[in-house]
Parts: sequence; structure tokens; C-alpha cells
Amino acid sequence: VTENPAANALDVPRSLPDFESWWSRRQEACRFQVSQIPFRALDQWYFDQDSGNLRHRSGRFFAVEGVWQREDTADAGTRPILHQSEVGILGFLLREVRGVPQVLVQAKAEPGNINGLQISPTVQATRSNYMRVHRGADTRYLEYFQGRDNRRVLVDSLQSEQGEWFFRKRNRNMLVMVRPDIPVYDDFHWLDLGLLRGLLGVENLVGMDARSVLSCTPFSGPRAAAGRGQGEFLDALAASYTAAGPETGALHTETEILSWFTEAKAASGLTAQLIPLNQVRDWTRSETEIADSAEDSFKILAVDIDAPGREVASWNQPMLAPAGRGIAVFLARRVNGVLHVLVQALAQHGLRDGLEVAPTVQLPGAAGSFLEQALTEDVTQVRFDTVLSEEGGRFYHALTRYRVIETAEAFPAEAPEAYCWLTVRQLMDLVRHGHYLTVEARSLLACLHSLW
Amino acid sequence: VTENPAANALDVPRSLPDFESWWSRRQEACRFQVSQIPFRALDQWYFDQDSGNLRHRSGRFFAVEGVWQREDTADAGTRPILHQSEVGILGFLLREVRGVPQVLVQAKAEPGNINGLQISPTVQATRSNYMRVHRGADTRYLEYFQGRDNRRVLVDSLQSEQGEWFFRKRNRNMLVMVRPDIPVYDDFHWLDLGLLRGLLGVENLVGMDARSVLSCTPFSGPRAAAGRGQGEFLDALAASYTAAGPETGALHTETEILSWFTEAKAASGLTAQLIPLNQVRDWTRSETEIADSAEDSFKILAVDIDAPGREVASWNQPMLAPAGRGIAVFLARRVNGVLHVLVQALAQHGLRDGLEVAPTVQLPGAAGSFLEQALTEDVTQVRFDTVLSEEGGRFYHALTRYRVIETAEAFPAEAPEAYCWLTVRQLMDLVRHGHYLTVEARSLLACLHSLW
Repeated sequence: VTENPAANALDVPRSLPDFESWWSRRQEACRFQVSQIPFRALDQWYFDQDSGNLRHRSGRFFAVEGVWQREDTADAGTRPILHQSEVGILGFLLREVRGVPQVLVQAKAEPGNINGLQISPTVQATRSNYMRVHRGADTRYLEYFQGRDNRRVLVDSLQSEQGEWFFRKRNRNMLVMVRPDIPVYDDFHWLDLGLLRGLLGVENLVGMDARSVLSCTPFSGPRAAAGRGQGEFLDALAASYTAAGPETGALHTETEILSWFTEAKAASGLTAQLIPLNQVRDWTRSETEIADSAEDSFKILAVDIDAPGREVASWNQPMLAPAGRGIAVFLARRVNGVLHVLVQALAQHGLRDGLEVAPTVQLPGAAGSFLEQALTEDVTQVRFDTVLSEEGGRFYHALTRYRVIETAEAFPAEAPEAYCWLTVRQLMDLVRHGHYLTVEARSLLACLHSLW
Repeated sequence: VTENPAANALDVPRSLPDFESWWSRRQEACRFQVSQIPFRALDQWYFDQDSGNLRHRSGRFFAVEGVWQREDTADAGTRPILHQSEVGILGFLLREVRGVPQVLVQAKAEPGNINGLQISPTVQATRSNYMRVHRGADTRYLEYFQGRDNRRVLVDSLQSEQGEWFFRKRNRNMLVMVRPDIPVYDDFHWLDLGLLRGLLGVENLVGMDARSVLSCTPFSGPRAAAGRGQGEFLDALAASYTAAGPETGALHTETEILSWFTEAKAASGLTAQLIPLNQVRDWTRSETEIADSAEDSFKILAVDIDAPGREVASWNQPMLAPAGRGIAVFLARRVNGVLHVLVQALAQHGLRDGLEVAPTVQLPGAAGSFLEQALTEDVTQVRFDTVLSEEGGRFYHALTRYRVIETAEAFPAEAPEAYCWLTVRQLMDLVRHGHYLTVEARSLLACLHSLW
């Protein structure tokens, strides 16, 4: 890994071909072989004798444990879950060159990615790095997310991850403005923020962590677009970026939204607690996987990674492999010329405060009664439709189909009790605070940002 | 309990004498005897054989369990804790009569109150009431906090309670506007909101739940007060109600504050989990109390209540009795003519997300290095100084000295790392969302509202 002075030149236009040529070079440099192995071939991981939990010998990283759900006092089942209590940093560096904002993207290979390399934030670091207790190479650029000088913090919030698969996991999402002339290393590249938004439409390219930070970025939104193709939709989208309440065209006040969400939380009887993995019922462990008898949710398996040229050239680890492709859909609707999306208050056993604001349809999670509309193939309604990957460091080939569907005028503006119509601005106001939007809802919010 | 039509008359001025005469009548009607009893005399409570937990036979209300704290992987001790997983509603009804806002206060006696009766919100109801699974008399006015019609919700958020004594307890704080002519029952009284604010300066009168809801109330603040006594202080207080960021005189932007708090959360290594009470070390149970050998924090004891004239005329229950009086102090300082208060990011084992924003000094909790200034007897600096009660349904004679101290100009405006200077408006913006301010910080915010 070397520094490439030319990569930082302030007069280089950050064009798409420029990005593509860097990306091809990174793909050539990244040779990556992933193969499934039996659990007993894991060298740093073991099944704890008492609990049956699958753990790393250091006690760090994550563990596969069990979770027990209850609905009020009724047993609502047990299953395996990933437990990682450390808070990590997911951070983009931002600079401005001649008025154009650029972010420093990282080409990062993860074993669970279906295609090896994806676009990641400048920094992905765990608290062990963060608190400097870890040995090993320093994380590049970490100092910009820790110090208090020479930087301006634009985004800084703790956000959740998959509530079906992780127990109360959260990461710190950050966007930090720096001076333009910092060093750029081989795996990094300055990319116009507008180009990055556009790349969200490419399958399995912009990774989950990058989408999460993008969703927290305080965009001012598109300018009104009358006269262009899709003009009416873009006008409604533009209006949605400024509609904070009824006086600017939103259906609801912020207080109404907070009250809707508070009521859902107060009414929810779901509680969840960790249990030893060997107390999980109806799941069995073979030589190569932990699976439930129905095989309809996910498996835990072990993989071996061979990555010549990387600092750590080979390792092995357990991963969670979902049984099928996920679905996350915002149904959207123009109301008073302002685009609104339909969200649900969704209870999931891995969410820290029991429930968060999720897309209209989120699977795994809940489809409610909108699955048919969400899967429409009517191209006049489809505004966004791309398969993107969930985090490849923990999940093996976890793909989700992200869609934004603009429903016909006939679609009812009245929302069922667990649902609410929000504007883009109202989603952005919520995501400033942690634990409001699920990671799937945040990904979709990032996708909305790609539509202009 | 009967309805008193005259109590609702819209032409009755809501004067202080009017309140006082109602209050005296309620005190006469409330005869209340509380005496300590041995645990074995509790008729509906028992020590669970396996866990040693002290529980109610119904499984409802609360339980005395144990909590185990760790700081990263290091053992940080065990102690008893109250566990109550049900979410309750704490709600005030609000009406406007000739432009004057009035809230419907309740005279409520609780066994732990040092003086029996205190001012409570219109409704205090648990989720059991809320979900209508409870038998017994209906909770008065509950329907206004549940329906969706004939009301306007002004406040609705989930807020924490004492992180030293409760494990992840939270209540729903609500303020709901209704039409002025609803029935008023004996234990209830319409009180000008301004009068209620003023009553915060009376010792042990406005209860903790009422203070909590008041702290969430979106006051517009005092008008600038040049020319009156304390004019400069009131001007700075008035400016503090509008200072949302540096452009209006605040030291910090909202983003800086959120980032400061996120960093504190991410850096905190404190975790806590429930354990069986019989696994708590260094605490012993006698016939009459559970206490630690040092006796410097609290005891668990049992009391018998005799309340002739109440629907339930006698019962007994366990309570938590603190060893000494608590202290909660905002150090305040004028910066650019705007009043700022110094808050700390405080980790406590009972807080749902590990830490919340607390007063400069909060005991039990943390005194940091500001205890001496916080306890100053220099009357030129003391803006508020009143002993108020914590919730009397769970805590026995739990008193806290609440103070607002305006520090001299020489006091450093630079805050230590765990601290930050916030304006009143910034506190009010945070408290719209749950789990930002400790209940002690919320009480003090309510006290700030009483200063004009």
C-alpha cells in the first residue's frame, strides 16, 4: 500500500472514467478466494463448552449466541443471533474543491461480498482500534475521526444494523470535512459526492456501510425540475426535501410523527434477551452449518479466505448466510405536490429499543399488506430498483432488492395504524438522532438521494 | 370521588388562593399511615426461591432484582435494582381559557412521599391500564391519552427514570390539549400553567412525574426583562430560550452537541445486565431490610399503608429508601448575554442506552470536579434552590436538592471533555426525543422554567 500523490491532484476532474480506471486497478490487485469449511477447521474460533456459543479466542470481534423473544409474557421463539457489543466508526472524509463536494471512498474486499470489492467509507474501525488497544497496522485516516482539531464534523450519530441478525449492534456514522490536500493511498479515491449518489443505481457496488453514512448526509436536495423528463416526480422530490411540516406541504407535524412512533413503542410487548446458543430450540448443528429445520431464514457457516497481497493473507471465520434475497421497498405518493414515503414502526428482536422506523416492506422483517404493490412490475411506477449487498464482513452473499415505487393516485393516503407517511426532510430530521431508522430504511433514504 | 361541576367553571380565575383551598380540602380527605414492616408480613410479595428476587404474585408492578456492571471486561460490581418493564403514561391535560393555558393537576398521595400528597399529572397509568388488561376502576381521563380524536398532542416521548435505582425504566410523557369543558373530579384541579411553574419553588410540592412532563413542555420562554430586578439574568434566560445555535448566541451548533454526546456513548465501556438478587455480593438481607455493609447508597425495605377513604384502603409493598439526600445542580453562565448550563454525559447502569445528559452535579451519579461550586452559599449566585421529592410510589423519602447556580464571570467557559455548555432551547430540542436527558436533568429544566 503506497501513497499516490497524483491521486490527490486538485485539478483532476473526478469523472466517472477516472473512477472506473481506479476501480479496475483495485480489482486486479484484489485476488480473493472464499471457500466454505467445516467448523472444526476454524483456527481462532471455538464452540464454548458451557454455552455452546461460537466465539473468537480473543473474546473480540463477534460471537454467535442465542436470542429468546417474548411477546408480553408469551414465548415467541428462540434462534441464533450475532452479538457484537463494540461500537465501530463508519466515516467518510469530505472535501470541497472549487465548490464541488468530494468524498474519499475506499475499495474494500469482504469475504461475504458476492463480487469481492465494494465501495466503503474512508474508515471502518472498531472501538478496539478507536481506543488504541488493538495491535496491528494503524487504520488509515482514523485520526481525522478522533481528534478535535483541523476538521469539521457534519454527521455523527449511533445507528443500528440488521435487527433480524444482530443483537443491539450499532455503529457510529460520521462525515468529517477536511482540508483538500491530505495524502491519498492506493485503496482510496476522491469521488464527487454527486457521482457516488449516482453509483447507488449500480448492482452490488456501493456497500451497506457507505449507504448508511450517505443516508445521514444533510443533502439540500434537487432543485425544482419543471420541464425535464420526469419533471413532476422531480418537483415532488425537491419539495419533499424542504417539507418539514404542514406549512411546507408535509402531511404531518414533527410532533405527530414523534407521537405516532412513541405510541408504537409503548404498545409493543416485544422483549428479547440473549441466551446460550445451546438453548436455542429447533436449530441443529452439523459439521458445516447451524440451521433450522425449515431452512427458511438463515444458516451459520464457516469460510476460509485466501487473499494473497493483503496484509493478512489468509484467515477463516464464521458467517451468517441468509436463505433468500431480502426486499426493502418505499411506497411513495405525491400529496399536495410533495413526495411522501410510507414507513412502518417495526419491532425486531435485535433492535436496541425494540422497534424502529422501517420501509413499507422490509423482509426479513414484515411485509404487512403492501407486498403486492411493492413488487409491481409496472415500469411507470418504478423509480428505483437495484439489488445491493448487506455488510460482507459478517453476512455471506446477503442481497437485498431495494425499490422505490411511486403508487398511483388511487392509492389511499390514509395509513394503517402501524404506518405513517413521511417526507424526505422528515426522514433526514429523524436520522440525525440514533435508533430511529433501520439500516434498510437508511439504505433506501440513500437511494432516494440518488434520484436527482 | 365525585364530579364537582363548579370546579370547571370557565369564569373562575385560577388564583393561588383558589388552588390552596382545594389543596387543603384534599389534604383533609387524605389520611395516610405508612409504617415499616418485616418482609415476611408482605402479603402479595415474596422472595423467589431460585433467584432470590423480591416479586409480586401477579408478576406485575416491579421486582427487586440484581444488576451486574462491567467496565469493558472488568467487573465493576453488583447491587440490587428495581426492574419494571412496563411503560406507563404520565400525562397532563391542557386547556386554554381566554388565552391562558391551564393544566389539570391531580392531588395524589404516595406512600414514599415525606408529606403524603403532592401534585401529579392528570394521568399516571401503566401499560396494563393502557392495554385494558387490568381489572379495577378505570383510570380517570385515560381516554384522552389513547384515542385519536378530540385532542391535540403537544408532547409525546419516552423518557428514562433514575439510572441508579431503576433498570431501563421509561415512561411515556404526554401533554394533550382538550376542549375546556370536560368534567373535573374531586382529586383534580385546573391550574394556570404559570402558577404551576411558580409552585416548583415550594419544597416537596410538585412531584417528580409532574416535573418530568413540565420539562418536556414547549415553553416559548420569558420576554426580555430589562429594567426589572434581576433584569440581566432574565434577559440572558430569555435569550437562552431562542438560542438554538451560534447564529442566535449559543456556544455550540446542534451537530456539535450531538457529536459530543455520540463520542461519549461510543467511548463508554459500561455495560450492565440483570442478575438474580441472590447473586449480588456484599449486600445482606435481614428481617426488615436489604442493605450493603457500607450503608451509603440505599436500602430495600417493606412498608404497610393504611389509607381509609381510598378505594384500596390498605396494602403493603417493598420500597427503595436512599441513604442520604440527592443533589442535582446546573452551573449556569452567561456567554454573549445568553444563559448556558453545564451538562455532563453520565454513564449509569440503569440507563437504557448506557448514558444520558445529566446536570453538572448529579448525586447519586457523579459529582465530577464541580461539587464545591455547586454547593456554594453565595446568595448572589443562587437562582433556584429547593428540595423536591422523587417518585413516592417506589422510593421512600427520596429527597433531592435542586439548584441552579449562576457562576461568576471568572468561571471557565471551556468545558472538560465529558461536559458541554447548552442553552435552554438546546435542552428543549433534545428532550423532544427520548433518552437524552436524565430525570434529574429534566427536573432541573422544569426548575429553569419556574424562574420567570
